[in-house]
Amino acid sequence: MTIRVVLQSIEKAAILVDNAKRYVSVGRGVVIYVAFMEDTDDAALQQAVTAIMNGRIFQRILPESSPVTSVASLKDCCDADILVVPQASLGGKLKGRSVQFHGLVDKSRGSLLYDRFCQLLRAARSIDTSSVDANGVPLDASASTQEAEHVGRVISGTYGNRQGLKMESEGPLTHFFDF
Amino acid sequence: MTIRVVLQSIEKAAILVDNAKRYVSVGRGVVIYVAFMEDTDDAALQQAVTAIMNGRIFQRILPESSPVTSVASLKDCCDADILVVPQASLGGKLKGRSVQFHGLVDKSRGSLLYDRFCQLLRAARSIDTSSVDANGVPLDASASTQEAEHVGRVISGTYGNRQGLKMESEGPLTHFFDF
Repeated sequence: MTIRVVLQSIEKAAILVDNAKRYVSVGRGVVIYVAFMEDTDDAALQQAVTAIMNGRIFQRILPESSPVTSVASLKDCCDADILVVPQASLGGKLKGRSVQFHGLVDKSRGSLLYDRFCQLLRAARSIDTSSVDANGVPLDASASTQEAEHVGRVISGTYGNRQGLKMESEGPLTHFFDF
Repeated sequence: MTIRVVLQSIEKAAILVDNAKRYVSVGRGVVIYVAFMEDTDDAALQQAVTAIMNGRIFQRILPESSPVTSVASLKDCCDADILVVPQASLGGKLKGRSVQFHGLVDKSRGSLLYDRFCQLLRAARSIDTSSVDANGVPLDASASTQEAEHVGRVISGTYGNRQGLKMESEGPLTHFFDF
């Protein structure tokens, strides 16, 4: 295992991005919590992104008129938003009464891997990174008025930051995968 | 692995309990997503509950005046609410593009295990089950007015039901454990 993810279907969510009061919102789609082990390399990142984008694992990211029993991939649902939350705590193991974090990347490398992971997700979505800010929010004013709608964005938090998070789901359908 | 859990620190949350419009709220504490494999027995349930209650794995369930660097167990923080969400999807494995659920309990046994898991958590909290409804909501009127406060409750959803869920966290600090 080099990369650990927990994925949940969401109706909407918002993440704190500046350690103070600014929340960025996403609409219908998925939240991805991610932790990196110290042996994570670029090939592992690419493999995880390919699996996440292509896996038919997401319910409730289809348009609301679709039957809820349908299962789709993020590649199939290009309108679904993706919120990527850095979550080093996921890499812990419970030993006795304490959680140990052997094998987790250090913070500086974790930050680089997280940025690269989000960059690969944006590339898979054909998002022009010059059109979005560091958190994936579209720079043009017209797009920012659609803040709570799902338009296929890849929104990231800030590695090592306080992760204020609000989430609403009609069925989180939580998945867990090690890559 | 017989029992798989994902745990998150929350400020507050609400879960749909009657498949229609009734949400039950919890305050500061943790949400526990849980899936059971078919070889789960009562000893495994008890072991998981003991580990979850005693593990020093939870930040942000302490009173708000405490330093955020503190880590505590649910046993230490008897005021923290616990929201238990049945989440069979957690037991899946990604094979190629599909998620396979070999080894997951069937729905009827899963429902029994879920009820027993919540019952053991309530026993660990010394909650008198005759004083709460099937979802763990206190039956007396005075308690129900404190719905959004954390008072050490163990609130459950409904196994196999639609799992509407709203969550807010100042730092979800997601943990993953197999028992």
